[in-house]
Amino acid sequence: MPSPKINALRLNHSLEDLGRIGHTDQGMQRVAFSAFDVEGRAHTMDLMRRVGLEVTIDPAGNIIGRRDGSEPGLAAIALGSHIDTVPSGGKYDGALGVMGAIECLQTLQDQRITTRHPLEVLVFTNEEGTGFPHWLFGSRAMAGSLAAEDLTAVDQEGIGLETRLQAIGGDLSRIHEAARSPGELSAYFELHIEQGPALDRSGTPIGVVTGITGRAAFEVEVAGAANHAGTTPMGLRHDALLSASRLILTVERIASELEICRVGTVGRVSVSPNATNVVPGTVAFSVEFRDVDSNALTAAEAEFRRNAAEVEASDGVSVDIQALPPTIPAPIKPEMQDLVAEASANHGLATERLPSGAGHDAQAMAAITGVAMIFVPSIDGISHSPLEFSTPQACADGAQVLLDLLLLADQRE
Amino acid sequence: MPSPKINALRLNHSLEDLGRIGHTDQGMQRVAFSAFDVEGRAHTMDLMRRVGLEVTIDPAGNIIGRRDGSEPGLAAIALGSHIDTVPSGGKYDGALGVMGAIECLQTLQDQRITTRHPLEVLVFTNEEGTGFPHWLFGSRAMAGSLAAEDLTAVDQEGIGLETRLQAIGGDLSRIHEAARSPGELSAYFELHIEQGPALDRSGTPIGVVTGITGRAAFEVEVAGAANHAGTTPMGLRHDALLSASRLILTVERIASELEICRVGTVGRVSVSPNATNVVPGTVAFSVEFRDVDSNALTAAEAEFRRNAAEVEASDGVSVDIQALPPTIPAPIKPEMQDLVAEASANHGLATERLPSGAGHDAQAMAAITGVAMIFVPSIDGISHSPLEFSTPQACADGAQVLLDLLLLADQRE
Repeated sequence: MPSPKINALRLNHSLEDLGRIGHTDQGMQRVAFSAFDVEGRAHTMDLMRRVGLEVTIDPAGNIIGRRDGSEPGLAAIALGSHIDTVPSGGKYDGALGVMGAIECLQTLQDQRITTRHPLEVLVFTNEEGTGFPHWLFGSRAMAGSLAAEDLTAVDQEGIGLETRLQAIGGDLSRIHEAARSPGELSAYFELHIEQGPALDRSGTPIGVVTGITGRAAFEVEVAGAANHAGTTPMGLRHDALLSASRLILTVERIASELEICRVGTVGRVSVSPNATNVVPGTVAFSVEFRDVDSNALTAAEAEFRRNAAEVEASDGVSVDIQALPPTIPAPIKPEMQDLVAEASANHGLATERLPSGAGHDAQAMAAITGVAMIFVPSIDGISHSPLEFSTPQACADGAQVLLDLLLLADQRE
Repeated sequence: MPSPKINALRLNHSLEDLGRIGHTDQGMQRVAFSAFDVEGRAHTMDLMRRVGLEVTIDPAGNIIGRRDGSEPGLAAIALGSHIDTVPSGGKYDGALGVMGAIECLQTLQDQRITTRHPLEVLVFTNEEGTGFPHWLFGSRAMAGSLAAEDLTAVDQEGIGLETRLQAIGGDLSRIHEAARSPGELSAYFELHIEQGPALDRSGTPIGVVTGITGRAAFEVEVAGAANHAGTTPMGLRHDALLSASRLILTVERIASELEICRVGTVGRVSVSPNATNVVPGTVAFSVEFRDVDSNALTAAEAEFRRNAAEVEASDGVSVDIQALPPTIPAPIKPEMQDLVAEASANHGLATERLPSGAGHDAQAMAAITGVAMIFVPSIDGISHSPLEFSTPQACADGAQVLLDLLLLADQRE
């Protein structure tokens, strides 16, 4: 039996209301820890209290809204996302997951539906990592997976985490108490815009996320020899840019032609001395591979290194490859994916299974509980932009599936 | 009969003396129009007077030292080069041609040798174009090929040519009087360091320059679409960097594999937005081709444009190619090359014929008279650097060939 209908109009009003906080002509500026963020959090906590949640803030600044279940001893089912935005971002990224969760709780309250499990709405601190340069901060704190450097860093203004956390009701000295033990939560469900073009292209209303892609990232430096572009014969050159170009094309080939991993990108290039009439001496560039499967990332790295060694030998240059800290892929369990598909089918909504190319709080939460993610279409795949848009119907469809998913999960142990 | 011996020790002392003017820990700073340049010019004019030359300064600031010939009505044979340096340059580039010419005149004076033709030593203003951003300034003024924009430009300090020329005895209001008519000079000979590695590599003391390469230069912009590197599938990307990389490798192929022109270089690249996790949206880069043959440059450009059109079609990007003002190649006449070879053979010096990859005053002078150029080895091909070095023996060999060349030419016509 499908879940009761959520109120599509109310949900979209909630999104509009939150979208006014931090809105500017250049898009949303509700960057974590900013005055807009503080205002958005207060607004969100009000909404949470109105739907009958008891609201607390953990030492990492995460907002936790909870209501009890009817059966003692069961772990809570959590719904959530984040409300911080990137600078000049959109009003759906993160916000939809939080406002969708609150709409689910409102519908349950309206319909006087109790659940067996306690329910929680989670609003995670600094998902984007643009307010403080350590992303998924709140969800990693809750999962107990913060590293020492997450705590000692300072932001662009030179301000540390202690001050930033105080502004939102957190407490750096007790940060470890934000960690929750496996077993405290029976599941975590996150509704989010896709941020990519797949669902919009195929006209599918619901995306069943198969996993959140991990990322293997590298800094590569090719060192050749800078020389006069007029007087140095081609045969005597060690042009670092030519070698770099070969490796940039290799990154594409690894993902496209060889299909070793899902995507591979060189986004950043720096040429030295970068003068029209000088053969480039060194070229530094970034490489990243993404896939939901760790083995695919390992294979992509191996293929890239094999090609780099070949280029070294053939071009007489040196290629230095430094691995950056990887993001481990977070595959989503097939049974959790099936549950999202079932919830969608209950409302006649077609689904497409797809990985998430972007990172989400769900990938951190996967360390302590089973997670599922629901995607709704992003028009033209645009995100992290003032042009980010998902239709009111798409947002409503997503919240509807979230509610059904919650009730399906509540029926299970 | 070979020419009389020049004095190798004296020549190298002259080079050392001039090399002290503008010398710093970061190399030579005798940039055109600077106080060091003014001091170097005064020193050079003194030397010219001591070898019996009548010294004048033309309105372009060119120093002209002249002595009469024995036969009335003959056009002058000119020897010359420049004494301005690039910032942090070396002490041989330009200086060798001027000090070598003065050494030839000194030798003639010592040996009481008169020539049929008048002789001139020419010291050209601002060859490098780093003191004022219009290179080959003096030689182009003498050849009558200055353009309007050469005269109206201002330098980095916002100072115009009128003021700059005053500092060295020139006169902008009479600049057109610096132009000399074809027929006034019977030949122009320039001794110069190679500034490339060919002669040093092959161990050849004298390079017979076959021509001064022209340069076809372009600004290229590839426009694709910037997108999220995690969420945009490979098949939906229009990655400007991949298209640019293909075209960068095409530039190499045109010169190396296809041998359409002598060299092709991409020295400067700018990627936007240049972020690790964003598929590049636009990439701008420089392209230059060099060859002594104009047809080769035309063919190289055509091949590049053909490839760019292919990349546009295959990659779904747009490629904009803007041609910059070209430098026209200046081939050197075979009979002039032969004369350099004969002068070298007269002193048992082996020769190699090679093009000049760098530009020289001789290419401007070619518009009004027959020119020849003599190259001597640059150790490791290094130039425009404090590490620029040519051995005392190499410098002496070059001046010896220059003297012989002058006397061979004097016997003709």
